[in-house]
Amino acid sequence: MPEFNAPVRDMRFVLHEVFDAPALWARLPALAETVDASTADAILEEAAKVTGQLIAPLNRSGDEEGAQWHAGQVSTPAGFKQAYATYIEGGWVGLSGNDQFGGMGMPKMLAVQFEEMLYGANSSFALYSALSSGACLAIDAHASEALKSLYLPPMYEGRWAGSMCLTEAHAGTDLGIIRTRAEPKADGSFSISGSKIFITGGEQDLTENIIHLVLAKLPDAPAGPKGISLFLVPKICVNADGSLAEANAVTCGSIEHKMGIKASATCVMNFDGASGWLIGEAHKGLAAMFTMMNYERLSIGIQGIGCAQASYQSAVAYARERIQNRAPTGAVAKDKIADPIIVHPDVRRMLLSMKSMTEGGRAFASYVGQQLDLAKFSDDAQERQDAQSLVALLTPVAKAFFTDTGLESCIHGQQVLGGHGYIREWGQEQLVRDVRIAQIYEGTNGIQALDLLGRKVVMDKGVALRQFTAEIRTFADQPNVTYSAQLLDAVERLENLSDWLQERADSNRNEIGAASVEYLHLFGYVAYAYLWARMAHVAESKRTEDETFYGAKIATAQFYFSRMLPRILSLEHSIRAGSESLYGLNAEQF
Amino acid sequence: MPEFNAPVRDMRFVLHEVFDAPALWARLPALAETVDASTADAILEEAAKVTGQLIAPLNRSGDEEGAQWHAGQVSTPAGFKQAYATYIEGGWVGLSGNDQFGGMGMPKMLAVQFEEMLYGANSSFALYSALSSGACLAIDAHASEALKSLYLPPMYEGRWAGSMCLTEAHAGTDLGIIRTRAEPKADGSFSISGSKIFITGGEQDLTENIIHLVLAKLPDAPAGPKGISLFLVPKICVNADGSLAEANAVTCGSIEHKMGIKASATCVMNFDGASGWLIGEAHKGLAAMFTMMNYERLSIGIQGIGCAQASYQSAVAYARERIQNRAPTGAVAKDKIADPIIVHPDVRRMLLSMKSMTEGGRAFASYVGQQLDLAKFSDDAQERQDAQSLVALLTPVAKAFFTDTGLESCIHGQQVLGGHGYIREWGQEQLVRDVRIAQIYEGTNGIQALDLLGRKVVMDKGVALRQFTAEIRTFADQPNVTYSAQLLDAVERLENLSDWLQERADSNRNEIGAASVEYLHLFGYVAYAYLWARMAHVAESKRTEDETFYGAKIATAQFYFSRMLPRILSLEHSIRAGSESLYGLNAEQF
Repeated sequence: MPEFNAPVRDMRFVLHEVFDAPALWARLPALAETVDASTADAILEEAAKVTGQLIAPLNRSGDEEGAQWHAGQVSTPAGFKQAYATYIEGGWVGLSGNDQFGGMGMPKMLAVQFEEMLYGANSSFALYSALSSGACLAIDAHASEALKSLYLPPMYEGRWAGSMCLTEAHAGTDLGIIRTRAEPKADGSFSISGSKIFITGGEQDLTENIIHLVLAKLPDAPAGPKGISLFLVPKICVNADGSLAEANAVTCGSIEHKMGIKASATCVMNFDGASGWLIGEAHKGLAAMFTMMNYERLSIGIQGIGCAQASYQSAVAYARERIQNRAPTGAVAKDKIADPIIVHPDVRRMLLSMKSMTEGGRAFASYVGQQLDLAKFSDDAQERQDAQSLVALLTPVAKAFFTDTGLESCIHGQQVLGGHGYIREWGQEQLVRDVRIAQIYEGTNGIQALDLLGRKVVMDKGVALRQFTAEIRTFADQPNVTYSAQLLDAVERLENLSDWLQERADSNRNEIGAASVEYLHLFGYVAYAYLWARMAHVAESKRTEDETFYGAKIATAQFYFSRMLPRILSLEHSIRAGSESLYGLNAEQF
Repeated sequence: MPEFNAPVRDMRFVLHEVFDAPALWARLPALAETVDASTADAILEEAAKVTGQLIAPLNRSGDEEGAQWHAGQVSTPAGFKQAYATYIEGGWVGLSGNDQFGGMGMPKMLAVQFEEMLYGANSSFALYSALSSGACLAIDAHASEALKSLYLPPMYEGRWAGSMCLTEAHAGTDLGIIRTRAEPKADGSFSISGSKIFITGGEQDLTENIIHLVLAKLPDAPAGPKGISLFLVPKICVNADGSLAEANAVTCGSIEHKMGIKASATCVMNFDGASGWLIGEAHKGLAAMFTMMNYERLSIGIQGIGCAQASYQSAVAYARERIQNRAPTGAVAKDKIADPIIVHPDVRRMLLSMKSMTEGGRAFASYVGQQLDLAKFSDDAQERQDAQSLVALLTPVAKAFFTDTGLESCIHGQQVLGGHGYIREWGQEQLVRDVRIAQIYEGTNGIQALDLLGRKVVMDKGVALRQFTAEIRTFADQPNVTYSAQLLDAVERLENLSDWLQERADSNRNEIGAASVEYLHLFGYVAYAYLWARMAHVAESKRTEDETFYGAKIATAQFYFSRMLPRILSLEHSIRAGSESLYGLNAEQF
């Protein structure tokens, strides 16, 4: 099993050199006191240690053992409990949490680096706290002060975890048809009854309590998504002083047997008149839950980058060591019976594809993190609003594009190892299995694509899109931008295609869904082109300082523009073929 | 768990209607007596029964239980032994085997349909006989008459199995560096010593004997691939009358724990002075083994189609049943709370992508089967040679393109099921795990691509390629070919790109490997365009006879040309960017 080493140097490049995050932090009052370049670096180093030395070593064994269910109790694999206890001592669960309630108040730009490390080290382990962080965000944004002061501190500490209870057996994407009910009780709380499935970390043995955020319908609820309310339902009831009281009527009926993330318990949760407390307003639960969901969507996107990064590290190590055949241009390792396979063009193509997409993804995640920080911390209302528009536009791209291309990267990594890539002990196949879920949960990537094209582009009349492309144009129009022409061409394609789709959608409502997934991919490649152009621009200016590092960035950018960005040509062509060919068959003809 | 139903109607369409196989069989003397349309149909029906009712039901349980190793013995999962015994009673192992030695002598065109069914029903089970069929082919083509009459009959019967022993721990792709030795013995046999890994079915409990075909080096062997010889090494020695004698010095050291095909035993095989018999000439073992390998490459390609077909069936069934949200153009199932998801454009896009690639693949496999039959049975030397050229050109395409797109299809199928696609009991995730190996074994798809572009196109100076494209042009130039213009455009791109690569390869030897995988994909899409144009052409002429069936073919062709074929644009663009961007980094910069 290969080690996992967090790519701290690359992360520092993105944070400090590409985005100059410390300058931004210095001008945002809430961050100026909290974080600077050296704090950020110290956090990255410590995070690398925790993920590489404490959490990554449990990844393979966790996969082999899996989470176990017995009589309503879930046991995590050997070592998880001890590692989790050590992990939460570092305060990582509350890294970007509200410091009024015990969070560390760190910027999201920094938190996304940590999340990438965590998923890269061990996706199953990562999930136990990823859901907590998201739940805290929703509680912090929408719950009463009383609920916040009672629940947030132990959740930020990691002593209590959070879960997200949306899906029911008959209602996944279509939350409007959920059946879980909430009956008001005399004391202002509610009695929650229903059954939820696919609940990540719904039950586990790591934390003293689990705080479920549950979507349910009040008796007077209107039909459909506008009749959904959000409730806080603890596994164990909590006294006013924060101590634990009696068990709530919440039980774990079973856990799923899955393709991957086997150490993460995916639970059927039964609520049998459990006590719950309303978060936010009645019937407006979906909007409140979306605070958590948007957080989780970016986070789950980052799972795609983390797994791809882990796969890349293992593939590069193998390609440097494994000798097989000679380089096409003649022997390189003349003292050996064959050359290391990293000399072969197709092995390089796979590795560079992984490298360019993973580093492009990291830069994109950091960019979204920057916008989240601006939306939260800026004291300029317009800046906050602009940033919020970009976050809304880019979150579905991040979730789906990171994970679709994350799978592709892990498959490349597995392929580089040949037969060994298929054998469990080598670790690559686990990454393929683990990353695959990220295209499905938190809203399938098809749903992300509909959100992007239908809601964030077409319904928005392209306003946020133009804001984003205007920023790209401003960058590309500077002097000495190496990839200016290619970037401007790509942006123009995206804009024209978006306009074309806007028109088409008016006359045929199938057009959005017919185009959406390919549109999201095209969008992703254009966004990465922007970020690669920026990274190359920075690297060119510093090349003489460190040829090894900056030269690699420049070469990877060249690969991206030469061999990856051309994918937008086919995507555009296919999208412009429209929805007609999707409707030539009736359901029986499939 | 969904059922598997072999797509017999679609197979008959390809065999009888698209290729008019019965007319071909009638004119080939060796086949005229053996098979006609009704025999073929009876075989397809029986094969559908065997695969659907006997073998498919063991697929999930076989995955859960896996093959087990204990003290050198391998046990297959519960039910495999009984099913295998019933299976071989039908003579399926020898379906296209030499009838002089007990084979059924059926055409390959028919056999490929059966192979697709077998892989679709249960890939692990399929492998236990797929290797036997390939081993028989190599023995039949290269071994002495004495070996043939001793070994082929029980192998065709399925009482004995075959295995293919190439890979060693340090030598996978690079067979020139194998270390297994063969020492001549006084009786004309050889003593074989060495260790082989990744041996599919190297040990099992299904058959009375296992006949290993082993690559090894004689004491006087030249270095590299030209010093490899091929040996027949039985697990249990065989008396002259065909009865079993003492055990040979062949043992199974362990089996691998893999991502998928868990019911197939992947063995470490140790040969400790085992008795072996030379097949073919000394030092020419690699060429002899290629008889088996080329067979297996097509067969493993078909694994990609079979798994994709199984995934498609399950996805379509789910998409018709599962209700979630409303169609974009308004409610369809007004009596239900939501519409079946097959109304949604993106679900249709995924299903049609699977359908068009699976049916395109089936037609392509049948086309290669037809060429194999011509190469074997034609009494016209030129026709045999032309067919052989096409087989050589198209086999690597079949192996790699069927399996790369087979994985894509299975991932689509899994995605259609949403969260259920990730849960083991629903079966989709197993198909993803099982099909993934097919891109790796029998020569990775990267190796197939090098074989195609380096050997079959560039070294061949495009002769076989022109033969293939000339055939396509002849078809497209007929009157009333609906997709004539698009097909001719695609063919021209393939030809021009091939010429361009031919030139580039002269000046830079990295160009072939830099282009090869994308070139193979482009080739595959063009070949499928040819086959879809042919299928559409036939379907158009028969549309009034059966609108449901032929209308579906016509609509799927339209989807293929609108939404799949455009992929060649990006592939071409990326290929034409050349190898330069692959060599901007040294090994340490990755």
